[in-house]
Amino acid sequence: MDFDVVSPPDEAVRQAAEARHDQLTKPRGALGRLEELGTWLAACQGECPPHPLRRPRVVVFAGDHGVAGRGVSAYPSEVTAQMVANFQAGGAAINVLAEIAGAGVRVVDISVAVDTTAGEHKVRRSSGSIDVEDALTDDEVEAALAAGRAIADEEVDAGADLLVAGDMGIGNTTPAAVLVAALTGTEPVAVVGRGTGIDDTTWMRKTAAIRDALRRAKPVTADPVALLRTVAGADLAAMAGFLAQAAVRRTPVVLDGVVSGAAALVAEELAPGARAWWVAGHRSTEPAHTLVLAQLDLEPLLELNMRLGEGSGATAAIPLLSMAVRVLAEMATFETAGVSDRDAESVAESVDAESVDDVAPAADSD
Amino acid sequence: MDFDVVSPPDEAVRQAAEARHDQLTKPRGALGRLEELGTWLAACQGECPPHPLRRPRVVVFAGDHGVAGRGVSAYPSEVTAQMVANFQAGGAAINVLAEIAGAGVRVVDISVAVDTTAGEHKVRRSSGSIDVEDALTDDEVEAALAAGRAIADEEVDAGADLLVAGDMGIGNTTPAAVLVAALTGTEPVAVVGRGTGIDDTTWMRKTAAIRDALRRAKPVTADPVALLRTVAGADLAAMAGFLAQAAVRRTPVVLDGVVSGAAALVAEELAPGARAWWVAGHRSTEPAHTLVLAQLDLEPLLELNMRLGEGSGATAAIPLLSMAVRVLAEMATFETAGVSDRDAESVAESVDAESVDDVAPAADSD
Repeated sequence: MDFDVVSPPDEAVRQAAEARHDQLTKPRGALGRLEELGTWLAACQGECPPHPLRRPRVVVFAGDHGVAGRGVSAYPSEVTAQMVANFQAGGAAINVLAEIAGAGVRVVDISVAVDTTAGEHKVRRSSGSIDVEDALTDDEVEAALAAGRAIADEEVDAGADLLVAGDMGIGNTTPAAVLVAALTGTEPVAVVGRGTGIDDTTWMRKTAAIRDALRRAKPVTADPVALLRTVAGADLAAMAGFLAQAAVRRTPVVLDGVVSGAAALVAEELAPGARAWWVAGHRSTEPAHTLVLAQLDLEPLLELNMRLGEGSGATAAIPLLSMAVRVLAEMATFETAGVSDRDAESVAESVDAESVDDVAPAADSD
Repeated sequence: MDFDVVSPPDEAVRQAAEARHDQLTKPRGALGRLEELGTWLAACQGECPPHPLRRPRVVVFAGDHGVAGRGVSAYPSEVTAQMVANFQAGGAAINVLAEIAGAGVRVVDISVAVDTTAGEHKVRRSSGSIDVEDALTDDEVEAALAAGRAIADEEVDAGADLLVAGDMGIGNTTPAAVLVAALTGTEPVAVVGRGTGIDDTTWMRKTAAIRDALRRAKPVTADPVALLRTVAGADLAAMAGFLAQAAVRRTPVVLDGVVSGAAALVAEELAPGARAWWVAGHRSTEPAHTLVLAQLDLEPLLELNMRLGEGSGATAAIPLLSMAVRVLAEMATFETAGVSDRDAESVAESVDAESVDDVAPAADSD
């Protein structure tokens, strides 16, 4: 599947936003990364002052993984479908976080092992066990990419102006770690994390599975579609398609943790330049996630030792984006508020700066 | 002035909150610091599940500083009063941030150099130039502490369940740096920051003023009230009284940057144990702030290179506290949602963990 060319956020608007920031009643740059975020969001929207976030949306991609049968997770696969129902009932962490962030939550069953009521874009049940076989067929990987693209289009067409790709799937940090290792040239042991909280023997099984899958991935590392087919899964492929299409549709995205990050690495291959439309919501405790952030040259907004997935780390950062965009749009300027701008020069001129041991009081500027 | 004894947050409730976290539909600890924050807020409230934040309040303490006449700031002192009006009109950064955080903003003129309409707790105009004279008289420091205590009482009596002490005052990072240096035993040059964004010659003047004031502070470092009188200012003294009284009143506080942090160091001296009621909202770019965080053993929630004051860094973190408390109160439990809890043991038992090179598929747990 080919994605349309990704164009960057609007450079002229970015410059206008920077100039506007200099007129607001605060010292230049004093809001640090909130200023950078506001400038970026204005450039993404193509207008300055930017509009407040109107419809942030979290899409949770649910899927099971054949490799879970190797005993790589602390939880049984049945939890994936149970959590789909929990998302739909509003009882999961992402539901609570999203409500406070002002975001809607949608769960899509891409490849859960059993049937659910969220299967309007379902590609298949589960995936091949990637340590010994391909995750997907050629047709399935195309269908999964198309599903992700369609979901992004649906969301953008319905007015989404900020997107999060969340994940739910027992065993999904195993294919995610394989993708990250393959695309960053990293040894297996450096990408294996504790996932939902595994013990040492489970960690050994997970490491063995990642090592075997990575061996299978090596020949296809340069071909993102073949890589998804070989070691990903339909949920991860759909996330990659979703992230690529979001950039094609000029819609900013907050990335979540290692699963979203692995999909993002692939999406950047599918649609070069997509990463200009992304910000990293947080740094997860999964070691592979730090490799993702380095590869994409993204500095996370939060570092709170989160490792839940579901889009939770990204959604926890959404209020910072709301603040960033509204500060830029709504703060008073020095002129409208009747506040004096800095005049350090006039103060400096009234004092002999060379003799700091013998400073005289400077006159007030009036 | 004596403050009542500070009692710690409720330990039994803290334990109940930890136990509740283990029942929610997420792996244990997977929300990282959000779980710790929720547990802490429950212990502060004395009830589990905790109630959502009902009335977070930001109080901005405004005051001028005689030392500004030494040319230590990039802005003229008249900006302090202009910004008081800007807060009242809703045009400042803190107004925008607080609205998104669901917090109210109140500005109190403690020691602005001119009269304003926020002077119901005014102690005096400005302060002595601390490099050569005391900031306050004995009566003034008592009045300022009483003002801070009264403001905390007013807010708590009106239902505030989370407090932020913000600052506004041209020149105020100079006395703040002196307090931090005095209370942490640090050399002047290590505490001097760029404040609102000063140039090199202004930095030299600021360093000289801090050095001279610190020399004056040394004999009274062990006496917090005398220290406030000698090198602080009425606004900083009122903030210290406010922070101490908030802890006496068992009300959690989000600390802001270096000015709020300097006041917090003094408040912990005035009311030992107060810091158990505080969380650090962010790490500012002011070097003295990192010393404060280390001294109070607080890990900041955000590191966004902010350096505005006004309570902005603390308020940017409030949504994380809202999320923390509501996750703990509102998420479904494994039992109510019908989600299987971890059974890593049963999976592990079905696999020979020793022979990771030869793993067999584990049966699904059902």
